Amino acid sequence: MKAARIVKLNEPLQVQELQTPTAIGSQVLIKIQSSGVCHSDVHVWEGYYEGIQGQQLKTTDRGVKYPLTPGHEIAGVVEGLGDQAEGFTKNDKVLVYPWIGEGLCPACRIGEENLCDKPRSLGIYTDGGYAQYVLVPSYRYLVKMEDDMDTDTSAPLSCAGLTAYGAVKNANLKPNENVVIVGTGGLGLMAIQLAKAITGAKVIAMDLDDKKLEVAKKNGADIIINSKKEDPVKAIMELTDKLGADAVIDFVNASKTVETDMQLLRRRAKVVLVGLFGGELKLSLVTMPTRAYKIIGSYTGTINDLAELVSLAGRGAIKPVVSNRFKLEQATEALTMLKDGKIIGRGVINP
Amino acid sequence: MKAARIVKLNEPLQVQELQTPTAIGSQVLIKIQSSGVCHSDVHVWEGYYEGIQGQQLKTTDRGVKYPLTPGHEIAGVVEGLGDQAEGFTKNDKVLVYPWIGEGLCPACRIGEENLCDKPRSLGIYTDGGYAQYVLVPSYRYLVKMEDDMDTDTSAPLSCAGLTAYGAVKNANLKPNENVVIVGTGGLGLMAIQLAKAITGAKVIAMDLDDKKLEVAKKNGADIIINSKKEDPVKAIMELTDKLGADAVIDFVNASKTVETDMQLLRRRAKVVLVGLFGGELKLSLVTMPTRAYKIIGSYTGTINDLAELVSLAGRGAIKPVVSNRFKLEQATEALTMLKDGKIIGRGVINP
Amino acid sequence: MKAARIVKLNEPLQVQELQTPTAIGSQVLIKIQSSGVCHSDVHVWEGYYEGIQGQQLKTTDRGVKYPLTPGHEIAGVVEGLGDQAEGFTKNDKVLVYPWIGEGLCPACRIGEENLCDKPRSLGIYTDGGYAQYVLVPSYRYLVKMEDDMDTDTSAPLSCAGLTAYGAVKNANLKPNENVVIVGTGGLGLMAIQLAKAITGAKVIAMDLDDKKLEVAKKNGADIIINSKKEDPVKAIMELTDKLGADAVIDFVNASKTVETDMQLLRRRAKVVLVGLFGGELKLSLVTMPTRAYKIIGSYTGTINDLAELVSLAGRGAIKPVVSNRFKLEQATEALTMLKDGKIIGRGVINP
Amino acid sequence: MKAARIVKLNEPLQVQELQTPTAIGSQVLIKIQSSGVCHSDVHVWEGYYEGIQGQQLKTTDRGVKYPLTPGHEIAGVVEGLGDQAEGFTKNDKVLVYPWIGEGLCPACRIGEENLCDKPRSLGIYTDGGYAQYVLVPSYRYLVKMEDDMDTDTSAPLSCAGLTAYGAVKNANLKPNENVVIVGTGGLGLMAIQLAKAITGAKVIAMDLDDKKLEVAKKNGADIIINSKKEDPVKAIMELTDKLGADAVIDFVNASKTVETDMQLLRRRAKVVLVGLFGGELKLSLVTMPTRAYKIIGSYTGTINDLAELVSLAGRGAIKPVVSNRFKLEQATEALTMLKDGKIIGRGVINP
Repeated sequence: MKAARIVKLNEPLQVQELQTPTAIGSQVLIKIQSSGVCHSDVHVWEGYYEGIQGQQLKTTDRGVKYPLTPGHEIAGVVEGLGDQAEGFTKNDKVLVYPWIGEGLCPACRIGEENLCDKPRSLGIYTDGGYAQYVLVPSYRYLVKMEDDMDTDTSAPLSCAGLTAYGAVKNANLKPNENVVIVGTGGLGLMAIQLAKAITGAKVIAMDLDDKKLEVAKKNGADIIINSKKEDPVKAIMELTDKLGADAVIDFVNASKTVETDMQLLRRRAKVVLVGLFGGELKLSLVTMPTRAYKIIGSYTGTINDLAELVSLAGRGAIKPVVSNRFKLEQATEALTMLKDGKIIGRGVINP
Repeated sequence: MKAARIVKLNEPLQVQELQTPTAIGSQVLIKIQSSGVCHSDVHVWEGYYEGIQGQQLKTTDRGVKYPLTPGHEIAGVVEGLGDQAEGFTKNDKVLVYPWIGEGLCPACRIGEENLCDKPRSLGIYTDGGYAQYVLVPSYRYLVKMEDDMDTDTSAPLSCAGLTAYGAVKNANLKPNENVVIVGTGGLGLMAIQLAKAITGAKVIAMDLDDKKLEVAKKNGADIIINSKKEDPVKAIMELTDKLGADAVIDFVNASKTVETDMQLLRRRAKVVLVGLFGGELKLSLVTMPTRAYKIIGSYTGTINDLAELVSLAGRGAIKPVVSNRFKLEQATEALTMLKDGKIIGRGVINP
Repeated sequence: MKAARIVKLNEPLQVQELQTPTAIGSQVLIKIQSSGVCHSDVHVWEGYYEGIQGQQLKTTDRGVKYPLTPGHEIAGVVEGLGDQAEGFTKNDKVLVYPWIGEGLCPACRIGEENLCDKPRSLGIYTDGGYAQYVLVPSYRYLVKMEDDMDTDTSAPLSCAGLTAYGAVKNANLKPNENVVIVGTGGLGLMAIQLAKAITGAKVIAMDLDDKKLEVAKKNGADIIINSKKEDPVKAIMELTDKLGADAVIDFVNASKTVETDMQLLRRRAKVVLVGLFGGELKLSLVTMPTRAYKIIGSYTGTINDLAELVSLAGRGAIKPVVSNRFKLEQATEALTMLKDGKIIGRGVINP
Repeated sequence: MKAARIVKLNEPLQVQELQTPTAIGSQVLIKIQSSGVCHSDVHVWEGYYEGIQGQQLKTTDRGVKYPLTPGHEIAGVVEGLGDQAEGFTKNDKVLVYPWIGEGLCPACRIGEENLCDKPRSLGIYTDGGYAQYVLVPSYRYLVKMEDDMDTDTSAPLSCAGLTAYGAVKNANLKPNENVVIVGTGGLGLMAIQLAKAITGAKVIAMDLDDKKLEVAKKNGADIIINSKKEDPVKAIMELTDKLGADAVIDFVNASKTVETDMQLLRRRAKVVLVGLFGGELKLSLVTMPTRAYKIIGSYTGTINDLAELVSLAGRGAIKPVVSNRFKLEQATEALTMLKDGKIIGRGVINP
């Protein structure tokens, strides 16, 4: 089979001919039809995240090993099943849950494998979806798709969609609350749709770009704020009777956005940090207890969340937008375009 | 009645003769027997908390007005009841819940008056317990004490005990988790007792003082760490199979302690910030989602928490230690001794 | 003021001239504009509920005393405020939360006054809304309405709407679950609307009447089942891949409906019992643990639920249908029509 | 290997020589040291549970197939590991989680495999622990034991202990609540110990046997009631200021005990049904909403619960009592003695 692999950091991916794996035990071999191109693939390609005080957090320090076939948003059909794999038959259309854990830590044991102590996520710690086939360690990581669901628009559910969904769940919104969604790119848009579908809360979208904000409004945002044109803190305080926001979900998570977030909070508010932009926040410690704030790091979601999300997507509650399609040989181009901000919506590789 | 009042910041409290209030409507007049001297009284006396970058957060900016009778840890007996007050009769021994809210915000409506948008806590926003009598706005803020409970050792339950209890609840500990209690003064000790009584978790006490750590051990800490003598991060990593702590409850909440806290966390860990020492933390933003940390500001507890706590205290699960007793005229001395670290355990005023 | 009162069980209500109360302390006097006529008013009028083995549970055994002004769905404007009442001014348009508790039991202390040990609900234990004015014990039981909200269609929120909302919350539905709503009268319809607005679950409406089922479909039901025309158990099993329903909310709660409910459940399913029809169920005890069922009695909702509901109603997520309007003098007629099944939607008294 | 198998219902078990399985994929082969004899083994042997109206619920209708090697409380050492099994090495001392699910239903996906739609529990749906070896489908179902833990007293944790623990968790007890434990045999005793260790609630033990009640008292029960000697409803009402019990956990779950349970409940109370005695309850339907009762069927616990329980047991919070030890050849004798009520504590087979 062919796979597009990161052999050296920041250099073009190599399309290699590898042996197609065989499924044994509980494993399932998936023939990939659509593989989403995610911004965290760019971090894996570059080899670092931005930490505090200008330092870089290296992917290798998190346990990533190269060469690696990236790609963790995978939709396709079942090609082969190990002897102990069950519940699926050949050609079943499936979405792959990539956030696989070791299985023995407390997180794994309650189904939060995305938060495993020793993660082995597909496309990050083991070979992933920029390939013709992927070997999934167990049939348990598959979610059946309805026949009328499209693999291109479904693939992004397993990371972009799931991350938005996990963040909305972590915000634990009530119908008489408001939530500020910071960043209205792909994830922010999905979070807006999901918050509208399952919480009843009032959604305030915040971004620097009027066009994106217009799209946010069409996708359900009750109010939009361009934080370049108006003071976001003042705007939120006016909208909330000077009380502040009940929750913020920050899909950027950079110094500048989170500094602002912390100024527009109602007492008891939650700040859900999702983006991987990074940098540092100067956090006032005494304010945390007196104002009873919660700062919550949110990392993708569970396999049960993915099953819920596929159910919602099957009924149209959330619609990932695929804007660019690539061949396997164009993987480097796909990553470069994403890095340069040239992909609106989601890019998908069809191997 | 006599009351010891803060008239000017940092100057000696004045013992004034005020008119004893009369209870009307739902109000109840309490004859005070014991009034705890709390470290936050010192902040109210000094007029500020420490913020970020050396700035002071003024109490007046939080809405505190002077002159003020401080004191929010109040135990005594019912003296008078308004026409609509019920459930109590004269001379009933009661503990007063001081964290009173306006009653209309979402926090108040689920019984979290301690987190009200517009708080009117006794001894902070309205006259409190450094006096012979206190007027409580409703019988609903009273918790009946068993006859054999002592007012001196019970008074600190309504702030010190409740703050420890709220923090332990916010940590949401499981029996196979460990928790690091940072600071083993009065609150830390009570948190250790409470964590042992209701969670089943393993308790690791951390402090700079061997004597206090010995007391922590006697009160239930499974493991003690003197962070002056050994590297706390290394120690925790060794104790936890290199995974880190499941939760930290920081009763100091200063730059230095929280910086350490953030280095000894297991993935998914909670950091509960309780102390009012303050200062700033340089928080690495990208670490929040990738490690799925939660930073939780914890501010006292609800009236229901207090009822639970009084029930636990009545059966000996928690025992506040009263080390110093003062007359009303010694209020300034009490605050000064507390500020100077000369009170071990709790000081109580008997007016 | 005039009030329509139950003086003798089952006899016509008497319109009496009573002294208009004055608000003192925290009390608020409300000038009533709309007072909903609820099926539980019929029970209060008749004096009993149906128990097991043909026995009647008497309202007087639950502590109801006569003569009584019934009516607990009250919308109007603020007329007078006691000295300690705050947050409202004269002529504010408000909805009254009638499920008032004593304030000292654990339920009250977490804001679940509807489940108080010693309830004093308006219109049941104290005089209610079939009158020109009602005295509310505290401003805390008022929820402000937006100016453009109508009192006639809002009044039923405080019982019919709140009961539907509490039941939907008790079912704790997930987006990949299905829920069977048994009974598609006023409450059932609102439950369908609310389940669609805040849960993402698939809603199956069940009734004996095709016309009502059509209305259910228009209000959001995904699937409708006429249990007179088709076997409901068979129908549910076919719809759910032979697994059964994840949850049932039964707004009838009679022997016959609940017997059916128990046969169409998925393992782990919840049965939420809401209706007051009554009778007995022969429950198979061993089935409860082996199938891990939960049977949950659901009784109205909290004041915070009501605030959420008013927020949802203000944005159109739920629309109570008022079909009949009455004068105070027509109270007996209103109750009789309701008892005889002649009111579709909700009857409202405009005193 | 040797295994004691049920070949015909109610007839003596046959000790057969079977081929020792080999672990492949994620499987692990366990050499059994201790295998608990559980009352549900008797049901599997007899082939039925008692349903309503004198009917029997057959085990074969629940999917049980014979011949079968029973036994689901298994402790031993790792003998062999499949290629994909990890986290353990040969001779590791382990407890086996037997409540294995298919892995694809919503229950499994949140770690509640004990409540799977299509269970394949060891010793019930597949061959279990009355044998020298057992093949566990994945290393994920193993919980490591400390070296100083004994396999005989640990084996019962995986069913008896876990069932008690799951029931205590389902009761969701608060420190100012009381709970009535009905039945103080092995499970009831463990529930008492666990409720004391992790909830802070007041524990009332109820049984017909003074000797067992004395043991209950020694194990932590605050109050004991012999329901043969005194009216249990009256006793509970006196103890609770006429309010009733906050929760009941019924380890018998027979018509007679549950009828009593329903009469001694406080409003909002939970009744947790655990026992498999069975029979029917005539449930008053209208009482469910008006009193806001919850009836909760509780079936064992999750693998995470087992990990928590092993942690608690390792620190002495719970101590299963093993009273009888048997050889494999004595399996029929063990079941017969248990059925006849001749085993106090727990019987364990050492194969």
